[in-house]
Amino acid sequence: MREDPAVVVVRLGHRPGRDDRMTTHVGLTARALGADRVVFGTDASSAAETVRDITDRFGGPFEVSVTDSPMRAVREWDDRIAHLTMYGQPVQRVAEEVRGAHADGSPLLVAVGAEKVPFEVYDRADWNVAVTNQPHSEVASLAVLLDRLFEGRELDREWRGADRRVVPQETGKRVEDATDREE
Amino acid sequence: MREDPAVVVVRLGHRPGRDDRMTTHVGLTARALGADRVVFGTDASSAAETVRDITDRFGGPFEVSVTDSPMRAVREWDDRIAHLTMYGQPVQRVAEEVRGAHADGSPLLVAVGAEKVPFEVYDRADWNVAVTNQPHSEVASLAVLLDRLFEGRELDREWRGADRRVVPQETGKRVEDATDREE
Repeated sequence: MREDPAVVVVRLGHRPGRDDRMTTHVGLTARALGADRVVFGTDASSAAETVRDITDRFGGPFEVSVTDSPMRAVREWDDRIAHLTMYGQPVQRVAEEVRGAHADGSPLLVAVGAEKVPFEVYDRADWNVAVTNQPHSEVASLAVLLDRLFEGRELDREWRGADRRVVPQETGKRVEDATDREE
Repeated sequence: MREDPAVVVVRLGHRPGRDDRMTTHVGLTARALGADRVVFGTDASSAAETVRDITDRFGGPFEVSVTDSPMRAVREWDDRIAHLTMYGQPVQRVAEEVRGAHADGSPLLVAVGAEKVPFEVYDRADWNVAVTNQPHSEVASLAVLLDRLFEGRELDREWRGADRRVVPQETGKRVEDATDREE
């Protein structure tokens, strides 16, 4: 998967305190489901810390960038942009086009808003993508978009540099020390 | 889709205050992505209220049940149970079996934990399902499981009794008054 062009997730409109956990879940979902990097605002430093800590323990590669302006990261992005919004076009209609552009070598920025997102983002986006036109969760929308972008390949990803590894079980929990398994 | 056997999502281990938004997002994701009902504890009444309010405005059918013991709802469930946990078996391996049982007419309870889930739930579950064995978000896991269970059909669902309807747009937002469109 690491040979694909980059997929970067940017979190917009984070409200400190109120959105800390949602923003953390955006970052962890980006990491677990195949993105290469997440961009947070400096006001989301606790989320950044949690995602870095999980990457240290459970592996990567995965990058966490912090910037004083996530909007600037959108403005300065030269490649394709998919913006998740309940007002956009159905993911089942646009996923193939997004996938095609990505397969052709175009890095992708996925913009994930909290509450209000400036109109500029709708305008700059190549695709405004709705995972249903219903109000639900930006974390759920991100998960469905990434799963459809990578067509499930993200679920079989191998992790490097982990010091622990969960071993799938029918019942119960099993966690292995992974430090002796390093490449 | 309404002719399928029921899919019910139960939220376990809700911690009032701390989990209010995550629990709300579990309920909204359950509704938007094709489940028929969500079961919350009485200590998640603000989440229940939000999900009911969204259903009133954006349509249904979708039920919100509140019980003093979501664990009892698990114990008293007679049909199949899928429990989402990062320690479980890969969703890409078990989804077909879950889908098959559901297609054969078996209602499904999807158990979504917050932090610690009692071992009893692992034990009662027909499937302990992991959307990756990585720590991320129960909302993301629920979204991927439902999308794979319904194979995308949930995204084309029609909503009844809505008083507003979002019309998909390439750019921008469009919301219609839906009260004159009632069946």
